[in-house]
Amino acid sequence: MGVLLKGTPKKNLVLVTGRAYPKLANDVAKQLGIDVLKTTSYDFADGEIYCRYTESVRGTDAFVLQSHTQPINKWIMEQLIMIDAMKRASARSITAIVPFLGYSRQDKKHLGREPISSRLIFDLFTTAGADRIMSVDLHAAQSQGFFNGPVDALQAMPLLVSYVRDSMDISNVTVVSPDAGRIRVAEQWASRLNNCPLAYIHKTRDITCANHAVSKRVIGDVRGKDCIITDDMIDTGGTIIGAVECLKEQGAKSVTIVATHALFNGDAVENLKNCGARKVIVTDTVPVPQEKRFDNLVVLSIAPLIAAAMKAVFTDGSVADLFANYPEHHGKEFLLA
Amino acid sequence: MGVLLKGTPKKNLVLVTGRAYPKLANDVAKQLGIDVLKTTSYDFADGEIYCRYTESVRGTDAFVLQSHTQPINKWIMEQLIMIDAMKRASARSITAIVPFLGYSRQDKKHLGREPISSRLIFDLFTTAGADRIMSVDLHAAQSQGFFNGPVDALQAMPLLVSYVRDSMDISNVTVVSPDAGRIRVAEQWASRLNNCPLAYIHKTRDITCANHAVSKRVIGDVRGKDCIITDDMIDTGGTIIGAVECLKEQGAKSVTIVATHALFNGDAVENLKNCGARKVIVTDTVPVPQEKRFDNLVVLSIAPLIAAAMKAVFTDGSVADLFANYPEHHGKEFLLA
Amino acid sequence: MGVLLKGTPKKNLVLVTGRAYPKLANDVAKQLGIDVLKTTSYDFADGEIYCRYTESVRGTDAFVLQSHTQPINKWIMEQLIMIDAMKRASARSITAIVPFLGYSRQDKKHLGREPISSRLIFDLFTTAGADRIMSVDLHAAQSQGFFNGPVDALQAMPLLVSYVRDSMDISNVTVVSPDAGRIRVAEQWASRLNNCPLAYIHKTRDITCANHAVSKRVIGDVRGKDCIITDDMIDTGGTIIGAVECLKEQGAKSVTIVATHALFNGDAVENLKNCGARKVIVTDTVPVPQEKRFDNLVVLSIAPLIAAAMKAVFTDGSVADLFANYPEHHGKEFLLA
Amino acid sequence: MGVLLKGTPKKNLVLVTGRAYPKLANDVAKQLGIDVLKTTSYDFADGEIYCRYTESVRGTDAFVLQSHTQPINKWIMEQLIMIDAMKRASARSITAIVPFLGYSRQDKKHLGREPISSRLIFDLFTTAGADRIMSVDLHAAQSQGFFNGPVDALQAMPLLVSYVRDSMDISNVTVVSPDAGRIRVAEQWASRLNNCPLAYIHKTRDITCANHAVSKRVIGDVRGKDCIITDDMIDTGGTIIGAVECLKEQGAKSVTIVATHALFNGDAVENLKNCGARKVIVTDTVPVPQEKRFDNLVVLSIAPLIAAAMKAVFTDGSVADLFANYPEHHGKEFLLA
Amino acid sequence: MGVLLKGTPKKNLVLVTGRAYPKLANDVAKQLGIDVLKTTSYDFADGEIYCRYTESVRGTDAFVLQSHTQPINKWIMEQLIMIDAMKRASARSITAIVPFLGYSRQDKKHLGREPISSRLIFDLFTTAGADRIMSVDLHAAQSQGFFNGPVDALQAMPLLVSYVRDSMDISNVTVVSPDAGRIRVAEQWASRLNNCPLAYIHKTRDITCANHAVSKRVIGDVRGKDCIITDDMIDTGGTIIGAVECLKEQGAKSVTIVATHALFNGDAVENLKNCGARKVIVTDTVPVPQEKRFDNLVVLSIAPLIAAAMKAVFTDGSVADLFANYPEHHGKEFLLA
Amino acid sequence: MGVLLKGTPKKNLVLVTGRAYPKLANDVAKQLGIDVLKTTSYDFADGEIYCRYTESVRGTDAFVLQSHTQPINKWIMEQLIMIDAMKRASARSITAIVPFLGYSRQDKKHLGREPISSRLIFDLFTTAGADRIMSVDLHAAQSQGFFNGPVDALQAMPLLVSYVRDSMDISNVTVVSPDAGRIRVAEQWASRLNNCPLAYIHKTRDITCANHAVSKRVIGDVRGKDCIITDDMIDTGGTIIGAVECLKEQGAKSVTIVATHALFNGDAVENLKNCGARKVIVTDTVPVPQEKRFDNLVVLSIAPLIAAAMKAVFTDGSVADLFANYPEHHGKEFLLA
Repeated sequence: MGVLLKGTPKKNLVLVTGRAYPKLANDVAKQLGIDVLKTTSYDFADGEIYCRYTESVRGTDAFVLQSHTQPINKWIMEQLIMIDAMKRASARSITAIVPFLGYSRQDKKHLGREPISSRLIFDLFTTAGADRIMSVDLHAAQSQGFFNGPVDALQAMPLLVSYVRDSMDISNVTVVSPDAGRIRVAEQWASRLNNCPLAYIHKTRDITCANHAVSKRVIGDVRGKDCIITDDMIDTGGTIIGAVECLKEQGAKSVTIVATHALFNGDAVENLKNCGARKVIVTDTVPVPQEKRFDNLVVLSIAPLIAAAMKAVFTDGSVADLFANYPEHHGKEFLLA
Repeated sequence: MGVLLKGTPKKNLVLVTGRAYPKLANDVAKQLGIDVLKTTSYDFADGEIYCRYTESVRGTDAFVLQSHTQPINKWIMEQLIMIDAMKRASARSITAIVPFLGYSRQDKKHLGREPISSRLIFDLFTTAGADRIMSVDLHAAQSQGFFNGPVDALQAMPLLVSYVRDSMDISNVTVVSPDAGRIRVAEQWASRLNNCPLAYIHKTRDITCANHAVSKRVIGDVRGKDCIITDDMIDTGGTIIGAVECLKEQGAKSVTIVATHALFNGDAVENLKNCGARKVIVTDTVPVPQEKRFDNLVVLSIAPLIAAAMKAVFTDGSVADLFANYPEHHGKEFLLA
Repeated sequence: MGVLLKGTPKKNLVLVTGRAYPKLANDVAKQLGIDVLKTTSYDFADGEIYCRYTESVRGTDAFVLQSHTQPINKWIMEQLIMIDAMKRASARSITAIVPFLGYSRQDKKHLGREPISSRLIFDLFTTAGADRIMSVDLHAAQSQGFFNGPVDALQAMPLLVSYVRDSMDISNVTVVSPDAGRIRVAEQWASRLNNCPLAYIHKTRDITCANHAVSKRVIGDVRGKDCIITDDMIDTGGTIIGAVECLKEQGAKSVTIVATHALFNGDAVENLKNCGARKVIVTDTVPVPQEKRFDNLVVLSIAPLIAAAMKAVFTDGSVADLFANYPEHHGKEFLLA
Repeated sequence: MGVLLKGTPKKNLVLVTGRAYPKLANDVAKQLGIDVLKTTSYDFADGEIYCRYTESVRGTDAFVLQSHTQPINKWIMEQLIMIDAMKRASARSITAIVPFLGYSRQDKKHLGREPISSRLIFDLFTTAGADRIMSVDLHAAQSQGFFNGPVDALQAMPLLVSYVRDSMDISNVTVVSPDAGRIRVAEQWASRLNNCPLAYIHKTRDITCANHAVSKRVIGDVRGKDCIITDDMIDTGGTIIGAVECLKEQGAKSVTIVATHALFNGDAVENLKNCGARKVIVTDTVPVPQEKRFDNLVVLSIAPLIAAAMKAVFTDGSVADLFANYPEHHGKEFLLA
Repeated sequence: MGVLLKGTPKKNLVLVTGRAYPKLANDVAKQLGIDVLKTTSYDFADGEIYCRYTESVRGTDAFVLQSHTQPINKWIMEQLIMIDAMKRASARSITAIVPFLGYSRQDKKHLGREPISSRLIFDLFTTAGADRIMSVDLHAAQSQGFFNGPVDALQAMPLLVSYVRDSMDISNVTVVSPDAGRIRVAEQWASRLNNCPLAYIHKTRDITCANHAVSKRVIGDVRGKDCIITDDMIDTGGTIIGAVECLKEQGAKSVTIVATHALFNGDAVENLKNCGARKVIVTDTVPVPQEKRFDNLVVLSIAPLIAAAMKAVFTDGSVADLFANYPEHHGKEFLLA
Repeated sequence: MGVLLKGTPKKNLVLVTGRAYPKLANDVAKQLGIDVLKTTSYDFADGEIYCRYTESVRGTDAFVLQSHTQPINKWIMEQLIMIDAMKRASARSITAIVPFLGYSRQDKKHLGREPISSRLIFDLFTTAGADRIMSVDLHAAQSQGFFNGPVDALQAMPLLVSYVRDSMDISNVTVVSPDAGRIRVAEQWASRLNNCPLAYIHKTRDITCANHAVSKRVIGDVRGKDCIITDDMIDTGGTIIGAVECLKEQGAKSVTIVATHALFNGDAVENLKNCGARKVIVTDTVPVPQEKRFDNLVVLSIAPLIAAAMKAVFTDGSVADLFANYPEHHGKEFLLA
């Protein structure tokens, strides 16, 4: 009889999902060849949320996925509660997967006496028990620094580029940034599209005189070109639709809109439908329900990307390499959502 | 010229409110002889909350009031964001006032793999920056221990007792607890009503055999008595309405319902209206909007109590004494809400 | 030559014990087929405690067992010091096993300016370095929320029920709760004893009039029955002995007392010996030394339950299932302590 | 004899400085009408830093000023050590004043496996004991969110604008941003200079084709104008000197350079001297020693601004208002450094 | 009606005491001209400690005094519980006064797998809620670094020196250190006694050969001298009594023993009584009950020193100055305990 | 398809180094049979440090080695930044290796208002993300308690003793402590050198009268002996060179100096070269560059010791045993650095 009880180390990954967008978790699970662990979840009469895992999660590397779609505060709270339950059920590590991270635009004080809500959200995740955050195309790169631990900042660009290359002739393409602040992303797009030309929309406040009414100007040549506008998200769609108009006026041959997060709030759907864009290409980091879909909308599944990152995390592979070595052509891996 | 710059210590109290129930904050402010500090608050298109204080709060003792009514997760998140803004705006101390504290019933694990959401909520307040919590009639006394700092646990009973004494003849009264777990509170009521008799509803699971269908039995004599049922909250009202029926069957002369938190979810209003109770007496720890009011409902203002506790906190007086020495008769101080 | 040094993951469990009740640790170790790791422990002349582990514990899952018996503050402090030593000796994880958790009844403020000592104890364990707490029959379920991590809340009931079923004819049994607050536990007992009848002792404060002298009344029919009184602990034994008298007066045929924690303080032993109970059945979560034992006392060993839970924790099995699927009849597994 | 000892609250401000740039602290102290508290500071033979305050700081609101100039890591460490000493000497609150905050440009991960050094620096200040950070023109607004507490983010613009208005004819002025990312700041400048015209330097990577060699283009009309280039800092000066050349080529009448932080590393001084700018206007957030000064360099003192902010913090006034209501003309308040 | 409620800042000091040595707190209170705030304290039947403050402590600067005498673990726990109650009762700041700090000698790991109990004790105080520690003659100066906040490290030397000067002729005095490690303290004594000669006891392990049996040698001339042996504490007294014998053998005229902490464990009293020392002079940092007193024992009251330090802390004066400027002759201020 | 994704646990060790002394890391890596992971590191123009790991470190047990040599504050900061990058790159555990730990002598407050810089340094490592510290011959054993986690305190003595035994005749040796405070270390040396005689240098402040000018005296017999002076570090060398002179005056046959940390600041090299010592034996915990080397200097490699400790940590072996069982004679394992 010795002093130690010896055991065999194990390593198990478990995936659970909130109720905001369960289909995404199912898609991810399918990629991983597993089932989503069933969670009992419902609202009490006064709106409080209840959850419980139906099987043991002890010692697992747990991933808690939630899409921060509307009602956004409810779904954030559900995710926090699920993480608390996971922590108390002895998961070995907990990763919060938030394909679109709520409040990520409130990342600084513009004025005195404002909150920095994005930092707060990261802190709430820490408090609930998350060890790691996984998200796609964070609004500001700086917000990774709001978390005191590893953040897996995934990029949807390879997925979107791949679809574009496969679905259109890119020999006449120009990449367009909808404003000056996003030129760097557009450059990466151009580099991945055979170093095609770039343009961007300049919101002149009439450069000759500050504070004049805003007008828009295209910098770069778009006449006769197949334009691709790129942005990280489409919220109400105002900026992007203005850009489309502007490009049309300047004689663009066609306009394709590409964005990661399809929030589609307010009149976004109606306006996008009618703006004259050839296609609108997005991912399903937030759900795009049937009633928000329209003819020339393409919704790519973000699930393969998330599944690949989870695998890298779980097997101690490199997540950074996912984007460095991303295969430009990979066939049917990225199904429509 | 000396080494120090000397100043005069100041001590200022400021009160702000979320959008869940601003009237309550205004009522509290009126009691204190001040105005609520104006806060700019609105929702972005995707449901994210924005807030900003319109004046400096530097160095103040700040009280951030929110009522955890529906949509409850949204209002909790708003309060957290407001506390973050307060912290970053250099308030000297921050007290979160939550007259009814959301998730307070989820204070333990009944089963494996459940969260302890009430502890989580307290931790979220700490993370956002709250130094102190003030609440009325917490569901479980133990939950004070979920906070690592002072909790001002206010009691509505003196206010409710006072109204009962002033509004009805108490010579024929019997206090009734709606179940075995609340007998101690009922005893305190009886002691404040001239040591009147007690009764309670026993949910027999047919005492002779476990797991039989539940039936109800009144322990104590209620025939011909003016019964007062006391509870901490009315959510959907099921338990209390069952108790009223039970008392009526046993020949009670009249039944009065008294509770602190008027959640009134589901069919609560319809059922209370028709249950045959003489009166339903509640406070406005959560808003009771016009459409939820009915003829024999009385809503007492909780504002004077909160104002008194804030004063005690601000002037370093005793909050405990508020309840020990509460004047039984205080005239018109507690106005209807 | 590569960049990494590769190793083989190991998984070792080690068990150490304070000096309060080493026999329990030895019993647990025997169940696990190991030895308790020898610890050098003694008191300095001024009462300060010294401890040191005699072998390396680096990388182990360490369990530090202590029984919170008298002198209770000394044994709590010893456990804290042992956990500190374990942390500094590089244990991979540390579980504090406290079969009976001291101060668990001080879980709320009854009055202003009281401590919440139970929360404090949990915090002290966290500070010393415990990652997890394992305890049997916590006094209040809420106190799990005092710990910001996993708590394995074991239940002695299956063990006690099993003994009762094996040692007496249960066809004439009635389960009795010693007061209204413990009826739910009694119901679980009844359900495990073939759905036998229930009763409980009602401490009437003369229900017709508050604040009268307390008297006791049996609710339910106990005449001619073999009564089983169940409680979580026997401290000085006052409540339980009063219940026995009450049942006898009402014509009970026999009375058996069952409880998890046998604190046996004050005159408990003398009173239990003479109260006329058929048997007193307890576990050894705290030591029951020879001088406290008497003829009709049965002390069941809690060691098999703790060993089973440790195994589940160590092998990432489900602790919850230990109680869900507990075999009603398991022969000689639970030896007398 | 009562239970309490009563005292008179006091409120004292004390200012100490590291050795990086003591003159700045002296200038600030002069503005406040006090002396800098003398600190004994020196290096040990192996480069370790020693410090000690020569008078009691107990109960004071302490401000610990350090300029993060070269050798930057030494001066950061000195400030941390000074804050530790202040904490252990019982200061009531500690504000770290860092007019130029080191590592503020390393605010995100550009690539995998990079640090986020700016977040780290904020955390180091928290660890040492700082309650608040005061800095001038932080490189990224987001970095305020790296601190879990109040940050006083001062702006040098009113000071710089004021000097420009007083020292040159602004009727023919155009404000120029040295790259696309700084246009918003340039707009604020234009608005404060009678809504003068704007221009900016566009680093075209030949807009028609990504990844071509960079060339520079002026967007906006600068021919015959008195140009003012604005930036937050001049490090080696490469970007700004390129902008000057570009403006000259486009026929600008004169070029004035304005920046807050005069780091002046590498060949900055030599290049600025010879670049043909009319004037280079900076502040002394970092020291500009005599050997780095040249004929057309103007160094404005940042001390009045810091002193004003300290006063606002100390007297619980609004720091935000310092910039909203900043007097455009204030005569000789802002002396040359 | 304005936005702020304005108040008058107050500043109140309150002193409470554990049950280990209440007389000391009373003595301190008398020096301050106040009463000790009455605390209700008792043990439950199982040894758990209960405490409650009888009056409001909200907003006060609270001092919680406990002497770490036997049973030492109980009194440490009581102090932690009292601090928890103080924190939850909204004291503004909490200072733990521990005239003799338990476990202060366990300040390092001599061997692998030992605890560092002294660090643990400081952490437990932090966890309970102490903001500051006040102690007398800490065993190792390094242990101040175990606390992440201010430590008021008081020195009993001025008090002891003063008594010595007043009570004996110091013209023939030699100060003796009982071992090589305490020479520096002895030097300070000598300097305060008119620069009298020094000696010390050298525990030779026969300097010519390591690991030989220990013998003692006096370094310095003590023949015919009035020797004063100084140490920080007398535990079992072994070292000091050996020193006395050694001095006598070397022809010392008289030997006086001086120490701060009179633990007097084991046979200390008996041995001290009979060792032939002229006088044994100690303070009452721990209680010296009547049965431990003997003829030539002098117990000085530490209360005036603690009271002076409390005053300095409370009024933001310098505690360091208490020892720098200590009056050598101060008449009857330091009464016998 | 099951609920879990199962994986194979791995265990990888990675070693990275700062730029202070990369050779040491290479030597350690060679002992382990691996390469140091390549890190991209450089200074920006203003002295800020950049670093990035060139390969994935996810899931590894990472060791970050830095030698705290001059410029010491820069190298400490670099190590903190490297640890931050390691944490954000998902290393499983992070050990900071600091063969010589900077600021370790500032471990207490000698006077009021001083920092405790050594505690601060430990806290900075914790903040950056270090889980464990490994260091050689810490100046004060107490400083292990400044870290709230495991500290691997390595000892160079076995290495140094081994070299001495191999390189000189020890039959005529006397071990000499350079002051009274280091006698215990000297005793350990003597015990490892066949229980040879001991001596030490006594800095008399003329024992008959305090505060006299310091003179030095040798306690013990050194005439005709081969003396070995032992110390933990040689900073400017003043103390040790004084000791050599003293021994020579007393007729020592030869003097050998042995120390772990060869800081060699100020005129140390010049003085050591000319002091007449037979040999100076040190390790390379800090770099000893060519220009600091002289004829009779021997620099032993500390790499084998660090490598052995890393292996013990990585394989969960006992680090304590490294020193208990250290082979006295081990041939050529410890090469010259």
